[in-house]
Amino acid sequence: MNKPISQMSRCELIAEMNELTAEYEKIKAAGLSLDMSRGKPCKEQLDLSDSMLSILKSGEDCLSASGEDTRNYGILSGIPEAKKLFADICGVNTENVFVGGNASLQLMYDAVARAELFGTSQGSTPWCKCEKVKFLCPAPGYDRHFAICEAFGIEMIPVEMREDGPDMDTVEKLVSSDESIKGIWCVPKYSNPTGAVYSDETVRRFAALTPAAKDFRVFWDNAYIIHDLYDESPKLLNIFDLTRGTENEDMVYMFTSTSKITHAGAGISAFISSAANIKEALSHITAQTISYDKLNQLRHCKFFGSADGVREHMKKHAAILRPRFEVVLDAFEKELGSREIATWTRPRGGYFISLDITTGSAKRVYELCLDAGVKLTGVGATFPYGKDPKNSNLRIAPSYPPIEELKKAAEVLCLCVKIAAIEAFSA
Amino acid sequence: MNKPISQMSRCELIAEMNELTAEYEKIKAAGLSLDMSRGKPCKEQLDLSDSMLSILKSGEDCLSASGEDTRNYGILSGIPEAKKLFADICGVNTENVFVGGNASLQLMYDAVARAELFGTSQGSTPWCKCEKVKFLCPAPGYDRHFAICEAFGIEMIPVEMREDGPDMDTVEKLVSSDESIKGIWCVPKYSNPTGAVYSDETVRRFAALTPAAKDFRVFWDNAYIIHDLYDESPKLLNIFDLTRGTENEDMVYMFTSTSKITHAGAGISAFISSAANIKEALSHITAQTISYDKLNQLRHCKFFGSADGVREHMKKHAAILRPRFEVVLDAFEKELGSREIATWTRPRGGYFISLDITTGSAKRVYELCLDAGVKLTGVGATFPYGKDPKNSNLRIAPSYPPIEELKKAAEVLCLCVKIAAIEAFSA
Repeated sequence: MNKPISQMSRCELIAEMNELTAEYEKIKAAGLSLDMSRGKPCKEQLDLSDSMLSILKSGEDCLSASGEDTRNYGILSGIPEAKKLFADICGVNTENVFVGGNASLQLMYDAVARAELFGTSQGSTPWCKCEKVKFLCPAPGYDRHFAICEAFGIEMIPVEMREDGPDMDTVEKLVSSDESIKGIWCVPKYSNPTGAVYSDETVRRFAALTPAAKDFRVFWDNAYIIHDLYDESPKLLNIFDLTRGTENEDMVYMFTSTSKITHAGAGISAFISSAANIKEALSHITAQTISYDKLNQLRHCKFFGSADGVREHMKKHAAILRPRFEVVLDAFEKELGSREIATWTRPRGGYFISLDITTGSAKRVYELCLDAGVKLTGVGATFPYGKDPKNSNLRIAPSYPPIEELKKAAEVLCLCVKIAAIEAFSA
Repeated sequence: MNKPISQMSRCELIAEMNELTAEYEKIKAAGLSLDMSRGKPCKEQLDLSDSMLSILKSGEDCLSASGEDTRNYGILSGIPEAKKLFADICGVNTENVFVGGNASLQLMYDAVARAELFGTSQGSTPWCKCEKVKFLCPAPGYDRHFAICEAFGIEMIPVEMREDGPDMDTVEKLVSSDESIKGIWCVPKYSNPTGAVYSDETVRRFAALTPAAKDFRVFWDNAYIIHDLYDESPKLLNIFDLTRGTENEDMVYMFTSTSKITHAGAGISAFISSAANIKEALSHITAQTISYDKLNQLRHCKFFGSADGVREHMKKHAAILRPRFEVVLDAFEKELGSREIATWTRPRGGYFISLDITTGSAKRVYELCLDAGVKLTGVGATFPYGKDPKNSNLRIAPSYPPIEELKKAAEVLCLCVKIAAIEAFSA
């Protein structure tokens, strides 16, 4: 069948449902165990960086560009070459870079924790002393951002996520009128999970926000800053080029990491912001640690040589990931393309495809898939408080499974989407 | 001169002062640049672990004991073999261990931060909501513990540090009577800076404390748990053996790390506590990170093989450190032994010697040394708020300088101690 489900007769629906159900039972009997739930790099991707494992062999290899022994204590903000690597990738100066450990998530959580405990700058009120703290949460979005808000009891206000970024009319209106709104979570390039890239206009409107709260911060999680799937990739404006020297110079906290560049669990991360914000952060971090792991910073710097080295490396990831995305998108096109029961994004980078299906049926599809041995990301995970208001969004993570498994998983998913759609239509 | 300064005649004092001053000017002219300020391992110590750098060579090497790819995301609380390594060293079960990153300081800071933000357990009041939070601080102690208190605005109450641990009468009295006392900092073995080891009685009295505050926590920083200088070393009672199954089961937060075992800036750390406390910590850490660097955990496990492997390794450190301690202690004995102007500790392990000199003269000695090209730890660093009430304590760090430099530095220090003592006596 290839026509829109809404245009099918009752007879046709029953016939197709019988067919789909038979197919589903067959698959269920096959006892699959497939996983499209997690945005994890696959083994082949991890292998790309294995020569980094033993790139430092002796104590002599462990000297930083400035001659310091990276095996020892010290250098709180990161070794100079690691700062430069991130600065070059992000288009900022080294004074704007703090180099962290293996998880940018930790830098984000800690940035919120510092704001809660101490305020965003000298003399500003700690958020934990504010009666109410709210964050805008473009949705669908990244579940771990929302988890940070939940951890701190920060009220989340969902904002519609569109193809060119969040609904900026709403963002501007809320941010400029409500002093309790202290932050917004953004994944400006290849947004998690839609893959959207913020348009130039969106970035300009972000840079020009007029927050009611003086301590309002844009959490600019540039996790996929160079994670293109295709040579021709959309460009993201550098927000710091727009805020530098303006009233909003201190408004943006950017984060990035090499988690999806080298080894997912053993990369290095960066917190990037105005020199004043970095200085303020360091005044607290100096009590928290001596420095993050500088040997791992040096491994990365030696492995890549330069920002161009990182960009070259990303092409190898793209070569592995592209066919994985395409096998899923092809299945969607083939199985769902003409049925008018689903829309999906066609990301040019990042780690996810966002699939929107018949309102009210995402949980049903999740369960059908699970029973057939295909694990999807939990429904609602991409929304604040885990609540997808339409119960219609599924986040598809094509990176991890072997391509043959992925193909099978995508077929099962399409089958379940169709079953749920007919169920919903017939109900 | 070899007699006590207090027994010298005015003539003798003038004669010796002239001699000392001439010697001092000669040294000053030599333009030394020596450093006894920092408890950093020396190059030879760092070299001991260099084979760990390239112990993981390929992806196949990166599988954990349970078969998981440590290069990828996941395993929040640490890989099983790293938990076991710390559990075996510390005499606890793996359920009592959370494995952290390269700095146990971060685990301590974060433990305080969690207590401030969320309280120590479900339903307990976050410390930031308490009108007053106080910590007992055995002094002299570790400056970075005190810095954490300062960072959070926690009031520090100094408690006298003795040869067998803190003055327990005072600790017991304060802890059981003041509900605002929420913690105490302890370095129970080879205490920083005195090198004291808590006696069995002290540990027993800690385990049997009856805190007024139900959320009182003992911060048991076991940084030097196996850092013996001599084969015959003092034993520290395992406090968890004493608290297990009692009302104080959740009272102790222990911390340790391999910072002074492998590479100071690139070790692994552990937070060790009751299963309930570990579970509570994980409920927050799950929002903060995906996991700490598991590749580095695996490197350590492969390098050591077992806790016995770590103990064997520590003997190599002892062989490097012992002569460094002894050259300083010998200089003290020779130059100050009969003068009755100084007392010092003779640690059997750890990283520091504590030198107590004529009341009121520590800052003078610090400055004399500095002018002569010998850098000491800042006076007062070992006391809460950086204030040594007697201005008499100097922390000596013998680990880092080459032994010849150390010998010279110790001589200069002794010279300055004598000058300051005669100045004080003559004043």
